[in-house]
Amino acid sequence: MITPNRYSVILGNLGNTCDRFLPTGYKESRPKEEMIRQAAEIPGIQGIELVGSWDITEANAREMKHTLSAAKLECVSIIPDLFSQKRWGNGSFSAKDPGTRREALEETRSVCRIALDIGCPLINLWLGQDGYDYPLTADYRRQRSDLMEGIRTVAAEYPGLRFALEYKPKEPRTHSFQARAADTLLMAVETGLPNVGVCIDVGHALMAGENVAESAVLLQHHEERLFHMHFNDNYRTWDDDMIVGSLHTVEYLELLHWLKETGYSGWYSMDQYPYREDGAAAVSESVAFLRSLEKLLTAGRQDEIRRLIASGDATRSTRWMRELLFGALS
Amino acid sequence: MITPNRYSVILGNLGNTCDRFLPTGYKESRPKEEMIRQAAEIPGIQGIELVGSWDITEANAREMKHTLSAAKLECVSIIPDLFSQKRWGNGSFSAKDPGTRREALEETRSVCRIALDIGCPLINLWLGQDGYDYPLTADYRRQRSDLMEGIRTVAAEYPGLRFALEYKPKEPRTHSFQARAADTLLMAVETGLPNVGVCIDVGHALMAGENVAESAVLLQHHEERLFHMHFNDNYRTWDDDMIVGSLHTVEYLELLHWLKETGYSGWYSMDQYPYREDGAAAVSESVAFLRSLEKLLTAGRQDEIRRLIASGDATRSTRWMRELLFGALS
Amino acid sequence: MITPNRYSVILGNLGNTCDRFLPTGYKESRPKEEMIRQAAEIPGIQGIELVGSWDITEANAREMKHTLSAAKLECVSIIPDLFSQKRWGNGSFSAKDPGTRREALEETRSVCRIALDIGCPLINLWLGQDGYDYPLTADYRRQRSDLMEGIRTVAAEYPGLRFALEYKPKEPRTHSFQARAADTLLMAVETGLPNVGVCIDVGHALMAGENVAESAVLLQHHEERLFHMHFNDNYRTWDDDMIVGSLHTVEYLELLHWLKETGYSGWYSMDQYPYREDGAAAVSESVAFLRSLEKLLTAGRQDEIRRLIASGDATRSTRWMRELLFGALS
Amino acid sequence: MITPNRYSVILGNLGNTCDRFLPTGYKESRPKEEMIRQAAEIPGIQGIELVGSWDITEANAREMKHTLSAAKLECVSIIPDLFSQKRWGNGSFSAKDPGTRREALEETRSVCRIALDIGCPLINLWLGQDGYDYPLTADYRRQRSDLMEGIRTVAAEYPGLRFALEYKPKEPRTHSFQARAADTLLMAVETGLPNVGVCIDVGHALMAGENVAESAVLLQHHEERLFHMHFNDNYRTWDDDMIVGSLHTVEYLELLHWLKETGYSGWYSMDQYPYREDGAAAVSESVAFLRSLEKLLTAGRQDEIRRLIASGDATRSTRWMRELLFGALS
Repeated sequence: MITPNRYSVILGNLGNTCDRFLPTGYKESRPKEEMIRQAAEIPGIQGIELVGSWDITEANAREMKHTLSAAKLECVSIIPDLFSQKRWGNGSFSAKDPGTRREALEETRSVCRIALDIGCPLINLWLGQDGYDYPLTADYRRQRSDLMEGIRTVAAEYPGLRFALEYKPKEPRTHSFQARAADTLLMAVETGLPNVGVCIDVGHALMAGENVAESAVLLQHHEERLFHMHFNDNYRTWDDDMIVGSLHTVEYLELLHWLKETGYSGWYSMDQYPYREDGAAAVSESVAFLRSLEKLLTAGRQDEIRRLIASGDATRSTRWMRELLFGALS
Repeated sequence: MITPNRYSVILGNLGNTCDRFLPTGYKESRPKEEMIRQAAEIPGIQGIELVGSWDITEANAREMKHTLSAAKLECVSIIPDLFSQKRWGNGSFSAKDPGTRREALEETRSVCRIALDIGCPLINLWLGQDGYDYPLTADYRRQRSDLMEGIRTVAAEYPGLRFALEYKPKEPRTHSFQARAADTLLMAVETGLPNVGVCIDVGHALMAGENVAESAVLLQHHEERLFHMHFNDNYRTWDDDMIVGSLHTVEYLELLHWLKETGYSGWYSMDQYPYREDGAAAVSESVAFLRSLEKLLTAGRQDEIRRLIASGDATRSTRWMRELLFGALS
Repeated sequence: MITPNRYSVILGNLGNTCDRFLPTGYKESRPKEEMIRQAAEIPGIQGIELVGSWDITEANAREMKHTLSAAKLECVSIIPDLFSQKRWGNGSFSAKDPGTRREALEETRSVCRIALDIGCPLINLWLGQDGYDYPLTADYRRQRSDLMEGIRTVAAEYPGLRFALEYKPKEPRTHSFQARAADTLLMAVETGLPNVGVCIDVGHALMAGENVAESAVLLQHHEERLFHMHFNDNYRTWDDDMIVGSLHTVEYLELLHWLKETGYSGWYSMDQYPYREDGAAAVSESVAFLRSLEKLLTAGRQDEIRRLIASGDATRSTRWMRELLFGALS
Repeated sequence: MITPNRYSVILGNLGNTCDRFLPTGYKESRPKEEMIRQAAEIPGIQGIELVGSWDITEANAREMKHTLSAAKLECVSIIPDLFSQKRWGNGSFSAKDPGTRREALEETRSVCRIALDIGCPLINLWLGQDGYDYPLTADYRRQRSDLMEGIRTVAAEYPGLRFALEYKPKEPRTHSFQARAADTLLMAVETGLPNVGVCIDVGHALMAGENVAESAVLLQHHEERLFHMHFNDNYRTWDDDMIVGSLHTVEYLELLHWLKETGYSGWYSMDQYPYREDGAAAVSESVAFLRSLEKLLTAGRQDEIRRLIASGDATRSTRWMRELLFGALS
């Protein structure tokens, strides 16, 4: 029996998004309640990801839980805010300053308490400030080690939660410590804890030069450490955070095939920056694209894909894809 | 009335292709006659491109003309061999050695005579060795000027032929002098001659970070200087020379739309390196992909595309493309 | 006789700079007067670039002129703010909305009046919003044409000012219309006006995959259209806006050689985003790097470089550079 | 006490090198004896790397051993030829065909016997054909697993030899299975054998978007799995195989610092493709560059570097580097 995919969205996708040239963003900000209502109305969306301090705090957690349940939305993950405050400018868990490292632990523990409180099973750690910008400024040995220790500490304290490490090669730093699938997996494994895994953000993986399907297989091969997925699209050189499927087609089909093939059972979560677009419309379109692929990947077509892969004939695979997309067109 | 596209192929695509690790290639070489016969059998192929000295010389020109006509194939262009001989290792028209520059002129004149002799209207100049590898080794001012002069000289001598300059950012040099659409157009314009234009190789343009449709519009905007098109696909960082449409879909649709929109009337020529694939099958698949798009681009759909472009709504354009590709699928 | 280089800085470099994750920036904002005072104290700095509306308006122009003169600083250029307001979100001169295009003209005219008023000779146009994000959303033909017309209109009205077009391949749009040296030069030439040229931002050129020295030569070859230079450094894939010379060495030396060789007589202006660094210190270091190269490029060494280039021997050029940098070390 | 670096070269660097456009290469081929003699004359070179079947076979092993000893050169590693024969076109250890996988084992065992026979301690495995080119053609799960098994099998059989896996993101395939430092390390660790490690080719790492120093630290952090180093330089997008230090300066300094800091005790081996340059001169220049850095990295300067890293001040680190390179110049 095929289990249907579960789709979710990061709440902020529906709000205003800014860039470094226009800190106020290109659109108007909206009240959170409206954003949640909009999310609930997107066909297919069943879950929400929240950012700590932006969307949820220990103070408003119960109220948020109530609001989400009223909208029939699950809280899929919480993302601690370890990246958008000045105090994290030189890193959180890997900061050279021990006080900052302690604060990062405290901040994450607080999010863990919230998660337990509202029944959210996953903490998604995007450690965007944990990296470096210039040569001869980072202690690759010590800082990576501190980073691992921080994650291990908090994950050991909260064995009932799962921690997904979201890698990204750069931005806001010119280099992130958790930059690619394999180095992040190595760190997850190094913690020695079964509740630490990896989140693939498809755009981050493309930007890292990865074949996303292969990265997913790699993570699943190592004790099913693929804990979470973020979806968006880009031109492969930067995290453009565009509508899913606006650029890549066959790569997405192959990715979804392998996610099923390797038993990925997590959420399919949208993570975009619709700077100039209507947020709800852009997210709806992303979900619609993924649902088109899901529908297309019948048991019969997955068998065909397995045979294509077994034959390894590039012309045949390309023809199959062309006939699939254009065969029914007149 | 819509004029149908004309499809052609570079003859060598059907033969053996090598890389730097396996100079003998991954396949067996085939006799030219067989390659021509195979080309003629590919559905949609009406023309052939030949490489000077590899495929055609003053000695065998008449015979080749006869062979092509017997196969009902037009000779679409000849590509002078200014790149695969040791004497061009430091450049042809831009070589620092004046003797080499003279030889490049002679070689090109010879190809021009052949072209006139057999009724081929276009010389495609891919000046792959004209560039440089290291800092502090090239005279960007003098060598670019010599390059332009060489092209001007020969194009002025053969006003009945058209010369298409095929740009590529790198390989075999780390930097080519004719690297991108706009710099190559500038050089074509600088000759002051109407019979010098540009050839877009789609893979070279992708590798240069260009939006190929925009490059085509730019060239057509400047006195319709887009003289020729080479088709293949790649991962945007290197000239992988893959089957057309094996990776990019919407970009190809947009390109074909704009080629029609700007009145491009040249050939749609396949230029691939099917290292490990059956050559004829790989080229057939490329043509089939382009013909699928051609069929899809009805007058009605082109009107829809014009409206999408006029509205500039990214979500709407993405939805249109998704519904086109997946709408008919069950 | 060798004319010494003139160094300047964009005023905002000394203030706070933000990114999309931390709109408030990593540092504290400073009063403009303090920033101007800091600029004046940087060894070698003689000029300032101002951004319209951020730094200078018709209302405060005279006061700013007075402040700059008191600090013995020239106003080198003004950059109209056609990028950091919501109304430009879909473009300025190339916006599909004619009202927005008219506003862009008005905004630029206002800056031109200010420039004439305070004796600033150059308008630097960075049209960051003039581009597009998704396939099938931009009218490459019409919008590029509108863009050129807008520039031509204002440049024709102010023949006493020079207009430098600053290209950049992407950001904030996924594609800019003025993306590379050659396409921007083509547009400058297309205006038919001698007072329209190009500004090279070194980081933008690196990000575009250009050899910056070659781009400079290309622009100077076409009627000395290189009007202005912005300096910073990056890892070649993104506009990291780092300290000059923090990554590239030989490329900078070659660039400075060719700027002299081709008679570039404009300013050497710093344009960085020292997100986490002390602004004045970071800019000082950039100027110090460029002055080290300037000092190094004696008439004798420029002769040596000419000989290296003439020989085209990669090993010899590499050895020369190594001996230069390491020869005196013990 | 500081141990001096040991420098070596891959023998083929001194011969002729070809690319896909000029299979005969740009230069003349030379006899192996002459190449060995040339290598021995390069100041600083003490070792040689040989390629199986090209340079050494079971038949000529003793003779080669004698020739090398006569030239006072150690055989540093042997690289089995699992990449330059038609039979490996679809992979060696990861080939879908079990017969090919067996042949790969046999070929490698043969090289191991030779290595034991002549006293060479290291097998360097560059599995360039083990990857894939197109979507929907590779079985990422099964083929990666076969690859690991092949390596484990042979490494278990020869516990007295060390096996270094040399990663590279692409070429000759569009994607390699051993693509980056971390994924290759994961596979080395997965074998469960202490004699399997990783070889960093600096150019491959740059092409993969890695900070090479950080990759070295990562590998050393995991049980000192950095077994070998190949040196060359490139423009970060392709394996240009250029003279060491012709482009990168500070990155090389940082790398050499961390190699010492983490106790790397392997060889510093040159791996270039001097297509158009005199091979011996190009390799000499590479060694000279690395020796300049080695000399520069005194205990005192390494202390300074540690302090710079501890402070993490980008401006200070950049200034230190500038003063080092330009401070002594007049």
